[in-house]
Amino acid sequence: MQRIGFIGLGLMGQPMARRLLEAGYPLTVWNRTAEKAMDLLAAGASWSTSPKAVAQASDVVITMVTDSAASEEVSCGAGGVLEGAHPGLILIDMSSIAPEMSRSIAERAKSSGVPMLDAPVTGNPKVASDGKLGIMVGGPKETFDACLPIFEKLGVKVVYVGGNGMGTTLKLVNNLIMGVAIEAVAEALVLATKAGIDPRKVIEITSVGGARTGAMETRGPRMIKREFSPHFSANNMHKDLSMALKLAEECGVSLPATSISREILRAAKSQGKGELDSCVVLTVLEAMANTVVKLKD
Amino acid sequence: MQRIGFIGLGLMGQPMARRLLEAGYPLTVWNRTAEKAMDLLAAGASWSTSPKAVAQASDVVITMVTDSAASEEVSCGAGGVLEGAHPGLILIDMSSIAPEMSRSIAERAKSSGVPMLDAPVTGNPKVASDGKLGIMVGGPKETFDACLPIFEKLGVKVVYVGGNGMGTTLKLVNNLIMGVAIEAVAEALVLATKAGIDPRKVIEITSVGGARTGAMETRGPRMIKREFSPHFSANNMHKDLSMALKLAEECGVSLPATSISREILRAAKSQGKGELDSCVVLTVLEAMANTVVKLKD
Amino acid sequence: MQRIGFIGLGLMGQPMARRLLEAGYPLTVWNRTAEKAMDLLAAGASWSTSPKAVAQASDVVITMVTDSAASEEVSCGAGGVLEGAHPGLILIDMSSIAPEMSRSIAERAKSSGVPMLDAPVTGNPKVASDGKLGIMVGGPKETFDACLPIFEKLGVKVVYVGGNGMGTTLKLVNNLIMGVAIEAVAEALVLATKAGIDPRKVIEITSVGGARTGAMETRGPRMIKREFSPHFSANNMHKDLSMALKLAEECGVSLPATSISREILRAAKSQGKGELDSCVVLTVLEAMANTVVKLKD
Amino acid sequence: MQRIGFIGLGLMGQPMARRLLEAGYPLTVWNRTAEKAMDLLAAGASWSTSPKAVAQASDVVITMVTDSAASEEVSCGAGGVLEGAHPGLILIDMSSIAPEMSRSIAERAKSSGVPMLDAPVTGNPKVASDGKLGIMVGGPKETFDACLPIFEKLGVKVVYVGGNGMGTTLKLVNNLIMGVAIEAVAEALVLATKAGIDPRKVIEITSVGGARTGAMETRGPRMIKREFSPHFSANNMHKDLSMALKLAEECGVSLPATSISREILRAAKSQGKGELDSCVVLTVLEAMANTVVKLKD
Repeated sequence: MQRIGFIGLGLMGQPMARRLLEAGYPLTVWNRTAEKAMDLLAAGASWSTSPKAVAQASDVVITMVTDSAASEEVSCGAGGVLEGAHPGLILIDMSSIAPEMSRSIAERAKSSGVPMLDAPVTGNPKVASDGKLGIMVGGPKETFDACLPIFEKLGVKVVYVGGNGMGTTLKLVNNLIMGVAIEAVAEALVLATKAGIDPRKVIEITSVGGARTGAMETRGPRMIKREFSPHFSANNMHKDLSMALKLAEECGVSLPATSISREILRAAKSQGKGELDSCVVLTVLEAMANTVVKLKD
Repeated sequence: MQRIGFIGLGLMGQPMARRLLEAGYPLTVWNRTAEKAMDLLAAGASWSTSPKAVAQASDVVITMVTDSAASEEVSCGAGGVLEGAHPGLILIDMSSIAPEMSRSIAERAKSSGVPMLDAPVTGNPKVASDGKLGIMVGGPKETFDACLPIFEKLGVKVVYVGGNGMGTTLKLVNNLIMGVAIEAVAEALVLATKAGIDPRKVIEITSVGGARTGAMETRGPRMIKREFSPHFSANNMHKDLSMALKLAEECGVSLPATSISREILRAAKSQGKGELDSCVVLTVLEAMANTVVKLKD
Repeated sequence: MQRIGFIGLGLMGQPMARRLLEAGYPLTVWNRTAEKAMDLLAAGASWSTSPKAVAQASDVVITMVTDSAASEEVSCGAGGVLEGAHPGLILIDMSSIAPEMSRSIAERAKSSGVPMLDAPVTGNPKVASDGKLGIMVGGPKETFDACLPIFEKLGVKVVYVGGNGMGTTLKLVNNLIMGVAIEAVAEALVLATKAGIDPRKVIEITSVGGARTGAMETRGPRMIKREFSPHFSANNMHKDLSMALKLAEECGVSLPATSISREILRAAKSQGKGELDSCVVLTVLEAMANTVVKLKD
Repeated sequence: MQRIGFIGLGLMGQPMARRLLEAGYPLTVWNRTAEKAMDLLAAGASWSTSPKAVAQASDVVITMVTDSAASEEVSCGAGGVLEGAHPGLILIDMSSIAPEMSRSIAERAKSSGVPMLDAPVTGNPKVASDGKLGIMVGGPKETFDACLPIFEKLGVKVVYVGGNGMGTTLKLVNNLIMGVAIEAVAEALVLATKAGIDPRKVIEITSVGGARTGAMETRGPRMIKREFSPHFSANNMHKDLSMALKLAEECGVSLPATSISREILRAAKSQGKGELDSCVVLTVLEAMANTVVKLKD
C-alpha cells in the first residue's frame, strides 16, 4: 500500500485524511497550525515538520490548501514538497486553484521528476467524511490510474478529464453552475416572499421535478434560517466565477447569466459579507427588493 | 368515491387520467380531438360530448389544457364546465396558467357555486404515469382537503400554498429556477467544450455535489445528443419567465439572472426554435460562441 | 389660424401652451386643478369647464397628461374631448403613453370622426419653454401635415414616424437608450469614486468624445450634488423600460442591457425612491458597492 | 520651445504629431514601419532610428502605440526611450493601456530619472487632426503643468486626474460608458426595425433630448449603412470593458450593464468580427432577433 502524505488539515482536509488512515494507508501529515493534526495523530498518523519532510516519507503527497498562493507555497516554496522529491513520488493537488497555477506547479514538479495530478473536489465536510466527494482529475493518465484506488476511498464519483489543469478547469465549470443556481434560488425565495408564499413551500415543491437543484437542497433551508456560516464562502464563489469568466474570455464564450450572477455576488463582498456562505447573496437581493425572506405566521 | 371528469388528454393529461381510472375512480372524459380518448375509453372511461356534459356527470372536474385561453374556454366558455354546474361540483384546474386568469376563473366559478382549485404540476409524462408529480395547490383549504386523496394518486409531493392563484404563482417561482438553471447548464456545456472538456464529464461530475440540478439531469444528455423534441418548450418557458418577471414587477423584486435568461431564451424563439424544448437555448449560446457542443473524439 | 385647445397644464404642458399662445394661436385650456391655468388666462387664454367644452371651442385639441389612464379619461371619458367632436376637429395626444392605448384612443376618435395624432416629446420644462422639444408623431400623414406648423412652434426636431401608435413606439425606443445610458453613467461614477477619481473629472472628460451622453450632461452634475428631484421619475423610466421590453417580447428582440437596467431601476422603486428622478438609480449601485459618490476634498 | 519626440504614427499618432509640428515644436519621430513617417518628414520632422535615439534628441517624448505590450516595449525594451534618458527628459504615454502597466512603466522611468505622464485620449483621427481630443492625465502635477501647453495643442479638454495610472483609469471609466451606450444604441435600432420604424427616425429623434449619445451620433449612421471599418475595434472595446470589470473587481463595485454588454461584445469577437468597429455588436443582436436593421422602403 502506498505511503500517503497529507498537507492541509482544514475543514475538508481532516475528514479526507481520516478516511485514508482508516482505509489502512500509512499516513504522514503536516499543517500550518499543528493543533489541527492532533486527532489524526491520536488515530495513528505521523507528523512531519515540513511539506518537504512529508514528501520524503511518502509515495504520494496530497495537498489540500486554501488557494493558488498556498498551493504554490507548500509545493514549490522553501521546505516545500518538491524539495523532498525522490524517485516514485507522486503529487496530487486537491485544492481548488486557478488552472494556470495548477499547470505551472505541474511543470515545476515534472522538472523535479514528480508527476502531478490536479484533483479538486465537490462536496462539503460531511460528504468528505462519508467518502462521497466528486473528484475531477487532470494530469498524466498513468498517474491517474496509479492513484485511482486512493481517489475511490474519498469519492463516489471520480472523473478523469485530461491533461494537467483540466481537473481545475472542470471545477470552474462545475462552480459556474452552482453559483448561478444559488442566485436563481435566492431570486425565487425573494419573489415568493413578496408574492405572499411561505418560502418553505418553494423548498418543498422544488425537491421534485425539473427545478430540483443542489443549491436549493443545501442552501434553501439555510437561507430561510439565515444561517450564513460558510460552507463555501461568497469570496470563494466570487473568485471561481471570476476565473470561469476569465476562462470564457480566453476561450471566446459568452456567459450572460454567470456574468450577472458575479456582479450580484460582488455586492455581498463589497458589503462585508465575503466570508459568509455564498448563499448570503440572498441579502443583496433582499436589500434591492426592500424585504426580508421569512416564514409566514 | 367521487366521480371524476377529466378535460384535456394531452401528453400530461392522458397518463394522469389513466392513473385515476386505475385507482378506481369513475371517470368521464372530454378532449378537443376525440381520438386521444380512445385508449382511456377502452380501459373503462366514459365519453361526454362537452365540458358541460362532463361536469353534469361528475363530482370533481379536472382541466389540464394548454394555456390561459384554453383554460378559460373549457371552464367559462359556451358549453363549458360552469354551464354544467350543480350542487357539490368542484373544479380543479391543473393547467399552468397565469395567476390572474386563474383567479378570474375561480371568481366566475364561485358565482356559479363551484369552488375551484388551481393545481399546476411539475414533472413530465413519464413522471405523471408513475404518479410522482409535484402538485402545488391554491384555493379554499376545505376544497383542497376534500380533493387531497385525488392529488395523492397523481403526485408524490402535494403542497397547499394558499388562496386561489397561489398554486399557479408558485409554479412561476418554480419555473424561474428551472429556466435559469437550464441557462446555467447551457453556459457550462459551451464553456467546457471550448475549454477542451468532453461535455459528458460535466454531466458526470455535476451528478454529485452542490452543482447538481434537475436541469442537467434531464436536459444535459439531450443537449449533447441534440435531441430538442419538447418536454417543455422554449415558448412555454419564455412565457413563464415573462409571467414571473411581471409578478416581480408587481411585487417590487429585482430578478437579474431571470431577466437575462429570458432575453437569451427569446433569441431561441426569434430564431424559430420556440416549439423545441427549452434547452434549445444551448444553440443560442453556441452561435454566440461560434461553436457546437460535441463529444470529444 | 387654428383655434387650439390645450388639456393638461403640468410641468411640461404649461410652457408648451404658453408658446402657442405667444405664437398667436387662440387658446382654450382646461386642467384638473384650475389654479395651474391662472398665468395662461392672465396672458390671454380662455378657460373651458371640461375637455368636451375645450373641444367644442377648438379646431385642434392637444392633450398632455400623466399616463395612459389619464389620457383615455380626458379623451374618451364622460365630458371628454370626443363628446365635443365636431367636423374638422383634430386630436393630438402629446402625452407619453402605451402604444396600444394610443391606438385604442385613435380608433375611438376615428369613430367620432376625429383624426388623431400621437406626438410624445423629449425634453424638459426648460426645453419646452424654449420651443426646442423633440416631437415624434404617429397618425394619418395628412393630419400631421395640417398640424406641422403647430409642432414647429414647440419643437426643434419634428419626426413623422408612421401610423397611429408609432410616435409612442419611437418614444419607448428613445427612452430605452436614455434608461440604459443613465445606468451606464451611474456605474461609471461609482467605479470612478472607488477608484479614487473625483467624479467631476468623469463629467468633464465625457463632455467630449464618443462617451458623450445626454444622460451625463443632464444627470451627472445632479447625481454628484445628490439632487434627485424628478425631471423624469424612476417610476416613469421603469414604466417605459417595461413597455419597451413588452414591445421587444412581441417583436422578438433580445435586449440584454435594457433588461438588466430595468432590474436595477426596480430596486430604486422597491426602496421607496420611485418618485425621485430616474438617476436615483445611482443610490442602488452605491448601496451594492457600499460607497457614496462624492467630490474629492 | 520643447523639442518633442513622437513614437507611434498610426491613425491617431500621425495627425497628433502633425499638429505639434505645425505649432512650431521641433519634432523627431520614430515608427515601427518607417513609411508612415514620410509625410511628416516632408513637412519638416526628423527621423531617428530608435525610440532611444528619439529620446536622446528630445525634451519630451510622446508614445502613442497599440497596447500595453507595445508601450512597454518602446519605453522599457532594448533600444527603448529609457535607454536614451537624460536630465530634463519627460515621457508622456498617450496610448490606452492598462493602469497597472502604466504605473509599472512610470516606476521604471522614475528609476531612470524620467518623470512620466499617462495621458490617453478620446476622439478619432478627424478629431485629433482638429486638435479637439479629450485628454486625461495621470502623473506628477508639476510634470503635467510643464506639458500643458503641448496638451492644449492637441486637445480641447485636458483633465488632470491624479497620480500615475489615473489617466488610464479614467480612460476605462470613459470607455465603459461608451461601450454600454453602443450596446444601448444597437438594442434600440434592432427593436425599432422589428417594430416597423425606419432606423433613421431613431437617429433623428435622439439627436435632441436626454437620449442623446455620442454613440448614436458617431455609430448610428454607420450601423445603418453597415460600415463596420474600425474607428475603435470590437477587440479593443472588449479589452477595455474587461479592464474596467477587473478594476471593478479590485475596487468592489458591481457593474451590471457593463458586465452584460461585454458578454454581447465577446460574441462579436468569437464570431470573427473582432477587428471591425465595436458597433458591429449590432450584428450579434440582429442574429439573436433573426433580423437585419435596414431602411424602410
